[in-house]
Amino acid sequence: MSSDITLYWGSGSVPCWRPMICLEEKGLSGYNSKLVSFEKKEHKSDEIMKINPRGQVPTFKHGDVVVNESMAICLYLENTFKNQGTKLLPDDPSQQALVLQRFMETQNIMDKNNALVYYKFRTKQEDWDQGFIAEKSKALAEELPLWEKYLSQGGEGSFIAGKDFTLADAALIPALAYLVRMKLPMKERFPHLASYYERMKDRPSVQSGWPPHWKDTPGYDYLKDV
Amino acid sequence: MSSDITLYWGSGSVPCWRPMICLEEKGLSGYNSKLVSFEKKEHKSDEIMKINPRGQVPTFKHGDVVVNESMAICLYLENTFKNQGTKLLPDDPSQQALVLQRFMETQNIMDKNNALVYYKFRTKQEDWDQGFIAEKSKALAEELPLWEKYLSQGGEGSFIAGKDFTLADAALIPALAYLVRMKLPMKERFPHLASYYERMKDRPSVQSGWPPHWKDTPGYDYLKDV
Repeated sequence: MSSDITLYWGSGSVPCWRPMICLEEKGLSGYNSKLVSFEKKEHKSDEIMKINPRGQVPTFKHGDVVVNESMAICLYLENTFKNQGTKLLPDDPSQQALVLQRFMETQNIMDKNNALVYYKFRTKQEDWDQGFIAEKSKALAEELPLWEKYLSQGGEGSFIAGKDFTLADAALIPALAYLVRMKLPMKERFPHLASYYERMKDRPSVQSGWPPHWKDTPGYDYLKDV
Repeated sequence: MSSDITLYWGSGSVPCWRPMICLEEKGLSGYNSKLVSFEKKEHKSDEIMKINPRGQVPTFKHGDVVVNESMAICLYLENTFKNQGTKLLPDDPSQQALVLQRFMETQNIMDKNNALVYYKFRTKQEDWDQGFIAEKSKALAEELPLWEKYLSQGGEGSFIAGKDFTLADAALIPALAYLVRMKLPMKERFPHLASYYERMKDRPSVQSGWPPHWKDTPGYDYLKDV
């Protein structure tokens, strides 16, 4: 079944990592995993553009079905393979509500991270606008305590939306890994988040999407002062 | 059943309008509709902060279940009231995939619109950075032809993800209404989008969320040159 599935992905892309986690959790590890090089602009290749006019990854195909938005791929995988592997969306309405809420809510972390980190990537350090950086740092610094609180309320060993691993964890973990890669002092500032991250990072599904180029490069210290 | 549901919303908010459309489509029009004033900062009231620590709208409650991300509310309403009103997510896997893809993909329009329009709102006209505006205008101008093409491929009278009204339409229509409010020359530039919008705008569910203050104020011409 998994041989019908192809995922094009790029190393270090949070949106790519999320569906990779879902694929593993649903027991679909035999899918065709196609790593594309951003440097060589392989995400703009004819092969990808043909099924994803945005020329982005993730680009996902299951038989004739194409889905390219990361969150839509995660939902599709859970709906289509409901009865195999990890149940990523509970049936109980109130539990399901919490999972959907946290799943979508992770986008706030991404948006606030990207606003700051991409600016630093794209702007020469001598041109950095410190007012802009302070504003974006504040937005991220105000976002993360919400998540710290969610985890502290969940109790020891909990996942982000209850007692089980769900879509919400698949969406959150890569976003946290990115913050760590950018040297956010997570352990000092957000101990519940740091403990959650430590518990999650060696999970096989998470490891399956770990960015290859992260293994031998140090990252950036763009979030060290947040 | 709908008397158990409360939605706090603000006039002119695209994220609020989406679940309002879904509520109507699911036959839940008797819900408690609480219009809050952004001017009076009612979205930061204790009543809302208690169930939505972000102090934002939409804020949604169904019995004891709270969901506050607009896309999560839409998914929750469809999953919870699957067998009543309009079916917003088809069962067929390939149709469902297309709906989820387009549903999530609408966020690209919002992000590109917001980057440009919010900048103009927040910056005095004499301080406008024309390079920044040109860059953001280009991003929006490149986004919309994708949607024009989706509609042209769908055939006359189609919805955005097939032959039926779905979650994807509920997410798209308010985003288009916002572009029109900001004087995007839709009819001239994107005839299929304009025709779709004309067919959709008087649908009762769409009208139910029409921003009250739009009815007697003219909007802004922030997108006239896109």
